[in-house]
This record gives sequence, structure tokens and C-alpha cells, in this order.
Amino acid sequence: MHGEPEVVDPIAELITNYNELNPAAVEELYEEPSPLEFMRFVTRNTPFVVRGAAADWEATRKWNVGFIKDSLRGETVNVAVTPQGNADSPTRHNDGTLVFAKPWEEQQPIDKFLDYVIAQERAALAKPAGEVRYAQTQNDNLRHEYATLFKDVQRDVPFARIALGAASGPDAINLWIGNSRSVTALHRDNYENLYVQVAGRKRFVLLPPHCQPCVNEQLLPPADYVRSSSSSSMTQTTTADRYPSLLGLELVKPEEAEEAVPFPTWDPDLPDQNSTAYSGLAEPLRVTLEPGDMLYLPCMWYHKVSQSCSAEGICVAVNYWYDMDFRGPLYPLSMFIRSVNSQKRCGRQNPGHGI
Amino acid sequence: MHGEPEVVDPIAELITNYNELNPAAVEELYEEPSPLEFMRFVTRNTPFVVRGAAADWEATRKWNVGFIKDSLRGETVNVAVTPQGNADSPTRHNDGTLVFAKPWEEQQPIDKFLDYVIAQERAALAKPAGEVRYAQTQNDNLRHEYATLFKDVQRDVPFARIALGAASGPDAINLWIGNSRSVTALHRDNYENLYVQVAGRKRFVLLPPHCQPCVNEQLLPPADYVRSSSSSSMTQTTTADRYPSLLGLELVKPEEAEEAVPFPTWDPDLPDQNSTAYSGLAEPLRVTLEPGDMLYLPCMWYHKVSQSCSAEGICVAVNYWYDMDFRGPLYPLSMFIRSVNSQKRCGRQNPGHGI
Repeated sequence: MHGEPEVVDPIAELITNYNELNPAAVEELYEEPSPLEFMRFVTRNTPFVVRGAAADWEATRKWNVGFIKDSLRGETVNVAVTPQGNADSPTRHNDGTLVFAKPWEEQQPIDKFLDYVIAQERAALAKPAGEVRYAQTQNDNLRHEYATLFKDVQRDVPFARIALGAASGPDAINLWIGNSRSVTALHRDNYENLYVQVAGRKRFVLLPPHCQPCVNEQLLPPADYVRSSSSSSMTQTTTADRYPSLLGLELVKPEEAEEAVPFPTWDPDLPDQNSTAYSGLAEPLRVTLEPGDMLYLPCMWYHKVSQSCSAEGICVAVNYWYDMDFRGPLYPLSMFIRSVNSQKRCGRQNPGHGI
Repeated sequence: MHGEPEVVDPIAELITNYNELNPAAVEELYEEPSPLEFMRFVTRNTPFVVRGAAADWEATRKWNVGFIKDSLRGETVNVAVTPQGNADSPTRHNDGTLVFAKPWEEQQPIDKFLDYVIAQERAALAKPAGEVRYAQTQNDNLRHEYATLFKDVQRDVPFARIALGAASGPDAINLWIGNSRSVTALHRDNYENLYVQVAGRKRFVLLPPHCQPCVNEQLLPPADYVRSSSSSSMTQTTTADRYPSLLGLELVKPEEAEEAVPFPTWDPDLPDQNSTAYSGLAEPLRVTLEPGDMLYLPCMWYHKVSQSCSAEGICVAVNYWYDMDFRGPLYPLSMFIRSVNSQKRCGRQNPGHGI
């Protein structure tokens, strides 16, 4: 009635409305939920942590460095190698462009891999720190590459299998072994995720799917870290496991341009860098998993994962990916937000209005 | 790469994506779902019908005209009176404006109310048809106004109470008694709704919440049907129950302007009238409830309800309203769609682009 009507920015309004209606912290449980209780969280697309859910798993009790070496003696494992612990992360290329950096992958003997990870962790303050190694293949590796360890974890998460009607169990079960130098950049997956900490700690920073306009998604051309060919025969050398590694890694753009990947470039832990007009409205949830804790990370939630190590100097976790349901409102509405935000950015219509 | 890049309309894309990912019909069950099975529908915000779920309820077996009259003998009930069966509907006022028409409400003896409804139904082809009467108070009337009938229905819907964690039961249980002249206009409620057909049939036309841009929501000023005061003493007359009624109803705008109500003006059964640029993309779901059937009408779904009568000439239904969960993505995202659509309509930015 008085002067100009207030122009509301629908995106700002969405983020604010959600924040007002939803808890500002990750709910903590001390017992596993029933399938029905779990399904209520799925309905709300809301995370929770169960403290100690896996405290009595064989994995949590037995998986130290010696046990893992014994279980996999003589075997090699796929290791992701990067200079900064930046596998699958937005990275500045030498030519100045921001790229989606994919790690160099190579097979390493399990004992040499672990020795390197531990040595680097123990000398964490030393410079140069050397390349960062992370066993992080997300291809159901615990039922294949690490099959001898699989018996020490649950075959699935029953409350999730029952609730989601996933009679055939999880789509993938992944093992993660690394040290505090590896950070998984903010991203999201189209899976319902149950994440179990085994050794060391993981710190999650979480944002719900509708925060897409906050994360400054950019179309990043992929690039690959490549180890110079003269030093690629890791499995035959005896010095390659020395810390720090001096072997050269180069970030190489593919000769034939690959499809660019839409990827967040905002880091909630560095909120003033690469921010959008909406980043300041986001209220990231933060939760730290201790050994034996289980996190429900709902489908399509953005997550950044940092880690710290056990006394031995490793960080070990297992996660269960269950297929998400693309039916219903969540998936198409999440795509809708991206489209609205994209048109807003392209059209520069009222940028940042109402914030 | 060739010519102009295709401009995608996010709203059109949303509706199309949803249609591709979701079934084009209401799922039919022949047993009640478990609480967990029900919760999967709640998660997907997707309706279903359970054929025969209430076939053995006392209500379904006993509620005929004689039984209802006996149960409520000597009592009066609240009756909504309109000229066209258009209670709570967009209606053209004499001055040419579209208003939200609220019915005239009066207390009528139960037997006279029923006699009128039946007489009108039996003479449905006669003209003039007379005013339309509908017992449709949605104020938990079955546990209050019609308390003597309540023992013949379930106190709640156990699978819903358990799934939704609604320990105190439904928020409201409503009884509906009318004839085929009453139509409930397309609208939506912020409730999880379990709808049980007792006598006669109801035909639902359903649209999911994200179809807000299809329904041509308009801000309608409310107006009230008022019966001329000289004929308002329904309970004392003996002629008022005569069919057809000749008593005058006038649609009156309140002296002090009341807040306008956002309300759909598109009717999926008349798709070419009052349509928007998006109406043609909507794929309404249609389902007819027979006596004993139960419909899960998810929160925030648009629904239009038409009805036909039992052999006796009445249509009777009961519905259970459970509180919806305003946490999670559905509610704020539904408001977001309204805001985006509203700005699009106001700004005339690319109206109908990409459709």
C-alpha cells in the first residue's frame, strides 16, 4: 500500500522458508531407527546420525593397519593420487581455467599404500608434504576389490533395505582409506547413503538439495592428473612408497574435449570465496562421525567431507548406496530449482534481489 | 551449436519431467498397505485407492436413509445451501467479478434435509432444479455434530496413524452427505487425507502440487450466499423441505472487504476454459470411488470432487485429515513454484516460452 510493493526473490524465499521450518542441526539417535522411523526421515529428506550404530561391527573392532595388511597380503589396490588431496575437485589448471580434476589412478600393493598414507599423516607438518593417496574407488569395491574384508561389515543396512524396498540390497558398498590430506569437495549423489565410520573421524558439511543456487555450480571441463610415464610402474618399485613422494603429477586436459560437469565451486568452509548472492542464506549442517557412528545422508544433499586419522594414522569408512526414488516431487523439483537459477544467472534478472 | 540455443521454460520442464517419471494412473490396491508401505506413498506424495478397504465397516453396511434418520432423530444439522451446488467455488457475481462463493449455512432437521436431497436427486432432470443442499462442514463434524454415527466407522486409519506418528489420531474426521448436484471445485488442503466412500460414488480429478501453474490460481474476493431474512426460519417451517425450494439466495460481498483467497479457476473437466499456458501439460489423474473404497489423497494435491448417488438418492462419505509435515522439501518447494509462476505472470517474461 505504501510505495513500491516489495519484490520477493523466490529463491531467497525458498531457502529462508526451509530454514524456518527445519532443524538447524543433524538429529542424533542412539539406536538404529525402525524401517518406518527411517522412512519418515526419507520422506523429509533429512539426515540423522546414529551414534555407535556400528560400534560392535567386526570392522570397527578389528580393522587396524596390521589387520588390513594381513587380510589383503600380496594384493594391490586402486589408489587415487593427487598433489593436494583434491580428487574429483574444482582445481585451477596451469592455463588459468577452472577444471574438474580427476585423480591419477594406479595399482599399489596394500602394504606400501598404507605405509605411505601413515608416514604422510605422521609428518603432516613437514613440507613439502608430497602427493596424496586415497583408496576411494566408488564402484562397490568392498564386495570386489576388498572382498576379504567384507565379512566384517553388515551385508546391508536392514532398516534401509526394508524401508526402501531394496530386496536385492544396496547398489554399491564402498570402502574408503586415506589420511587427513584428502578432502572430498562439496558435491551430491543420486543415492540414499548410509555412511559408517570405522577408524578416525569424518567431518561432514551438508546442504539440502534446494541450496543449488548457493553452491555456485559451474560447468567444469574435466582434466586428469597423469603421472609421468617414466615413473608409472609403482608396483615394481621399492622406493615409490617413500614419503614424501617426488614423482611428478601433471594435470592434463583430454585431447578430445569431454563433456563439462556441473559442479559446485562454493566451499561452505570458505564462505566468502566463490559465493553467490544466495550463499549467505544457506545454513550448512555440520556433523562429525566418530568410529562406529552411522550417518544417513539423504539423496541429492550436497556434502563436503574432511577427515582426521586414528592413532595409527589412517581414516577408514564404509558407505552403502541405495537407489533413490526418482518418482515423486524431489527429483523434478530439484531440477526445477537448477533451471530457475540458471535462467536467473543467464538473464541477470533482478540479480540478488530481495536478499 | 546451430542457431539460437533452445530456451527451456523451467515450469514446462518440471511438469514434463514429473509426468515422465510418474505413473499416469492412480495405483489400485486390494488390501490396506502396512504403515511402511503407506509411508512410501507419503514419501512420493502419490495417491492410491484401496478397493473395498471399508467394505465391512458398519457404516458401509448400515448407513441408508432410514438408519441415518433414526440415528439423528430430532436433531438438526448444518447445511450448506447454494443455487448451483457451488459451495466454496469460483463464481461470477452479478457485478461481473469472479468471487470465492461461500455457501449459506443453516440448521435443518436431519429428516427434512435428507428428504430434500433425495427428492431433488430423483427429479434431477426437472427444471428448475432448486437450491442445492450439502452437509459438508469440515470441522470434525463426525465426532461432534454426527457423534451418534461415529461408532460405525473406524476411529482412525491405523496404517496412517502409525506411519505418520499421529499418536493422537486424525486432526479431523468429516462426514459428507449430499446429492449429485454438489461439486467440490478444484482446490488443495494442507492435510494428508484418507477418503472413504460409504454410499453412492465420488469421482476425483487429481493434480500434484507442482501443477500450481496449470490451475490458473486467482486472488478471489470472498462473497457469501445469503438467504433473504423473511425465509430464514427453516427449522420452524414445514414447507421448507419442499422440492424445489423457491427461497431466494443472494450472493453478497461483505461490507468490509475480506482478504482475497488464492484459488484455482481452471477446471480439468473443461480444459479449454480459463486455461494457462501450462494447463495443457497437466495430466490429471482420475479415480472413482465405489462404496467401501478408500483413497489416499496426498497433502497439497489439487482435487475436484463430483458425486453420484446410491439407489436411495444420497451420496455419503467420510474423510480423515491427518496433519501434514511442513518440514522437508515439499511445502517450501510448492510455495517456490507459486512464487516463480507469479513473477512470470506479473513480469510477462517469456510467457509460455518453450511450451
